[in-house]
Amino acid sequence: MLGEFALIAKYFAGHDTGKGVRLGVGDDCALLHSKAPLALTTDTLVEGSHFFAGTRADFLGWRALAVNISDLAAMGAKPRYFLLSLTLPEAKKAWLKAFAKGLFALARQEKMALIGGNTSKGPLSITITAIGSIKPQRVLLRNAAKPGDDIYVTGSLGGAGLYVKAGQGELKLSSELFNELYAQSFLLPSRARFARKLTRICNCAIDISDGLTGDLRHICRESKVGAQLILENLPLNPCFALPEVTELLSREARIDTALYGGCDYELLFTLAPAQRAALQQLACKLQVPVTKIGTITPLSDGFNFMLDGRRQILRPSFEHF
Amino acid sequence: MLGEFALIAKYFAGHDTGKGVRLGVGDDCALLHSKAPLALTTDTLVEGSHFFAGTRADFLGWRALAVNISDLAAMGAKPRYFLLSLTLPEAKKAWLKAFAKGLFALARQEKMALIGGNTSKGPLSITITAIGSIKPQRVLLRNAAKPGDDIYVTGSLGGAGLYVKAGQGELKLSSELFNELYAQSFLLPSRARFARKLTRICNCAIDISDGLTGDLRHICRESKVGAQLILENLPLNPCFALPEVTELLSREARIDTALYGGCDYELLFTLAPAQRAALQQLACKLQVPVTKIGTITPLSDGFNFMLDGRRQILRPSFEHF
Repeated sequence: MLGEFALIAKYFAGHDTGKGVRLGVGDDCALLHSKAPLALTTDTLVEGSHFFAGTRADFLGWRALAVNISDLAAMGAKPRYFLLSLTLPEAKKAWLKAFAKGLFALARQEKMALIGGNTSKGPLSITITAIGSIKPQRVLLRNAAKPGDDIYVTGSLGGAGLYVKAGQGELKLSSELFNELYAQSFLLPSRARFARKLTRICNCAIDISDGLTGDLRHICRESKVGAQLILENLPLNPCFALPEVTELLSREARIDTALYGGCDYELLFTLAPAQRAALQQLACKLQVPVTKIGTITPLSDGFNFMLDGRRQILRPSFEHF
Repeated sequence: MLGEFALIAKYFAGHDTGKGVRLGVGDDCALLHSKAPLALTTDTLVEGSHFFAGTRADFLGWRALAVNISDLAAMGAKPRYFLLSLTLPEAKKAWLKAFAKGLFALARQEKMALIGGNTSKGPLSITITAIGSIKPQRVLLRNAAKPGDDIYVTGSLGGAGLYVKAGQGELKLSSELFNELYAQSFLLPSRARFARKLTRICNCAIDISDGLTGDLRHICRESKVGAQLILENLPLNPCFALPEVTELLSREARIDTALYGGCDYELLFTLAPAQRAALQQLACKLQVPVTKIGTITPLSDGFNFMLDGRRQILRPSFEHF
């Protein structure tokens, strides 16, 4: 067993400190001098709630940072720094090494610097606070959707929801498919670069963490608008087209997984129709798939899901408690 | 049971947002525009490691913020903002109400704004990231102690250590004394204001979180100096003088508790002897007790504890793992 301080020094210190950092890991606080406005967010992964016991440590390291980057992206912020609070039942070298590998692989890719943190003994849980820089007037908010806007999502939906259902034993997938979804659910792509460019043509976005339905409701509530989704247009995870999935899940069940599954960490944004061509150029240049899934409507029209031209009955969205 | 979002809205939103906050709780990130350099720190309280199961929720709310303020104070930073990550087994209204009461009582006292956070389901654990503003050149660091400096602590030592020993059943205290130590251990005073003034006359400090011995070792290692402590000068918690404590703990055991007990969250700082009068004026003005407990020595003299003129044998300091 390692001491706490040896542990921090061994696995988490010595990485790049990054621009604007006057003092990184090693004193009581980090010191930062940023002239730009900052965006700050914090998110926690708890064993048993956000991931199954026994999840690969490198996957956890990546995802703990990725879910925070997703929040930065949802504001159009450029990821810069993060603090890590790690609670572990015991300090196993192999686990820590793998966790740090996953964490810093994404940190390096995003040019983010670890500037502080702490470790505790207890049930496995990882909290990261991430900090990004933003340009004033180039911010994506939840309250900026307007009736007539198109509703878009990046990437695909439902993969994480399908992984969780299989992991909970609700359905049985081949180990090959299960492992593919497992990796996809944890090694999330960053949408931060795409989101920063998106601020040129749009100013309303949220990340899909609790499920498309719940997160779209946030936009509608904050923007005081309604929404109509065309469910046959949802970009389902490509794995959903495999025979082993279509045999297990009806079309309705696949759509339901995409609507309520959660943890996709894709961007949901609204766009004035005049910007469609600009969006296609951006998506092409950055190689980020975008799909139009519906339209923002007046508040009085409410929240509507259409499938094959028929209105669907909604159920409440996911809640932690 | 409350939904996650109702929960956040009900107990944690609607407090003052604070100067420099462009956007607080409610979007994917908080937005901050601070012209001053920032100090950032994060600390976690885990049930079973940092507090006993059943600890009062208002005490936890106060302390979760207080331990982070202690880190800000140790840098000489002015507390400004914080983010809260709260993991709970279930969302009980009475618990949340009490937790928020304790948390915001200290936040209001320190004029700190909650700018973001999240809630998760899981074993009880509280992570706060606190952010303060600092003036360049008015920073307290661990690496600035010089041979000949006096070593000081604020307040008193050992109270939290005695509380933990009693709570673990190692010794039996009267319920009156136990409850007094319980309250003292959680409702920690803030040393932030004192620390900011202290930056005028000193530039080396740390907060005592893991125990005086371990934290003094950090200063010595970072400053490349030695230290001599005069143990009879340690400011023991006033409760240590009660007959029920002196009957249970020998003088050596009382001193040991002060040296290794941890969680006192007092400031440990070093001061050039020329500044002694200025320190006494500051301590008097702000009504913060300060006690000289030793002297910084050259690195070659090592780390020495003296009691009644005799050198004591040291044991290793506290480690979480």
